[in-house]
Amino acid sequence: MTETIDPRQKILAANAEAAAALRTGFAAAGTLVLNLISSPGSGKTTLLEATTRRLRERLRLGCIEGDIATERDADRLRALGIPAFQILTGGACHLDARQVHRALDEAAFPPLDVLFIENVGNLICPTSYDLGEDFKVALLSVTEGDDKPFKYPAIFARAGVTVITESDLLPYTSFDLEAVRRQAATLNPDGVLLVTSTRSGEGIDGWCQVLEDRLAVKRSGAA
Amino acid sequence: MTETIDPRQKILAANAEAAAALRTGFAAAGTLVLNLISSPGSGKTTLLEATTRRLRERLRLGCIEGDIATERDADRLRALGIPAFQILTGGACHLDARQVHRALDEAAFPPLDVLFIENVGNLICPTSYDLGEDFKVALLSVTEGDDKPFKYPAIFARAGVTVITESDLLPYTSFDLEAVRRQAATLNPDGVLLVTSTRSGEGIDGWCQVLEDRLAVKRSGAA
Repeated sequence: MTETIDPRQKILAANAEAAAALRTGFAAAGTLVLNLISSPGSGKTTLLEATTRRLRERLRLGCIEGDIATERDADRLRALGIPAFQILTGGACHLDARQVHRALDEAAFPPLDVLFIENVGNLICPTSYDLGEDFKVALLSVTEGDDKPFKYPAIFARAGVTVITESDLLPYTSFDLEAVRRQAATLNPDGVLLVTSTRSGEGIDGWCQVLEDRLAVKRSGAA
Repeated sequence: MTETIDPRQKILAANAEAAAALRTGFAAAGTLVLNLISSPGSGKTTLLEATTRRLRERLRLGCIEGDIATERDADRLRALGIPAFQILTGGACHLDARQVHRALDEAAFPPLDVLFIENVGNLICPTSYDLGEDFKVALLSVTEGDDKPFKYPAIFARAGVTVITESDLLPYTSFDLEAVRRQAATLNPDGVLLVTSTRSGEGIDGWCQVLEDRLAVKRSGAA
């Protein structure tokens, strides 16, 4: 098994180095960077659309989209007037820092206040790859079930912010929000948990406020 | 990059060999084997619970559950009176054939008509690993969005049966069932697509009928 373990450690070490370089660049530019991770269909792009509508007048936003196939997600954000670059991974199950580095080179974004990196839809593999972000955002739809933090502990332990999505569907499911809160708090006592719905609008203001607050903190820290 | 590609090819070749041995064993035992693959929270365990309730009097059922953490899914099926073995992958994002082989040795199941293998919740990585199954089942909840087959083409191209779940939530989402049918048919013209809800009961009879038909075909073929 040695030959299967060593390459992974090499890959993660190379990724960590590339991520550190990205983080230095983002700090110098004063750009807040989020790495959004969830299952397919938890609502990452939909949350970014709602966020873009609220913040695009006040903040300079940009997006890197990671998908196995199709340019659909980037198109959805471009339609809202923000620059978006699509990384197509072919078959790979996560983004890595070197892909983000190349995407930034190719995209040549204007100066940004907030860069969203929407990872490939996968609750597992993206967790291990630092992309130079300020924090990871884990999304969990109420239709996915309330057992997920303990079943996929790595991402919920590492996410600075956990966003529960589709709260408007709570009445039609057996999702126990308090059970999820307890699991998330156990795995990550310092994490923030937000309950949102892009359909009802619940929690979207609070989510946008978190982004503005974190941006302000990052810039005051950099000053 | 050579050192990252060779191990994967070696791993897949070893897996194919182990899967072939499993397939031979399943054929000799006359056991129909399904490999269920979906995102976390699409309803794999819930579908298996409903299936077990319908079929446990007529067929000898058993289950292997794959999860990163927790024995919860196996417990849910044991509670319904069928033997279930939990594989905990630690952090790995998919099951492989050797894990299934070891699980069968350890579980020492009685003779089975149908063995369900519920893979780790992940729409990407499990797709590449043959587990000796008769067919893969891809599950997609209507809350996950109707763009998923083209965004995750490998699993929808390879699944013998695609099960749309949570159809009772269709009125509360913008999920376009016909768009999904078209994508699935494009990727896999021979695949079967079933629309189901364990809450309303829609499609569960049809799903169980598919299992009984496939079992009959397998046994007539073996005779």
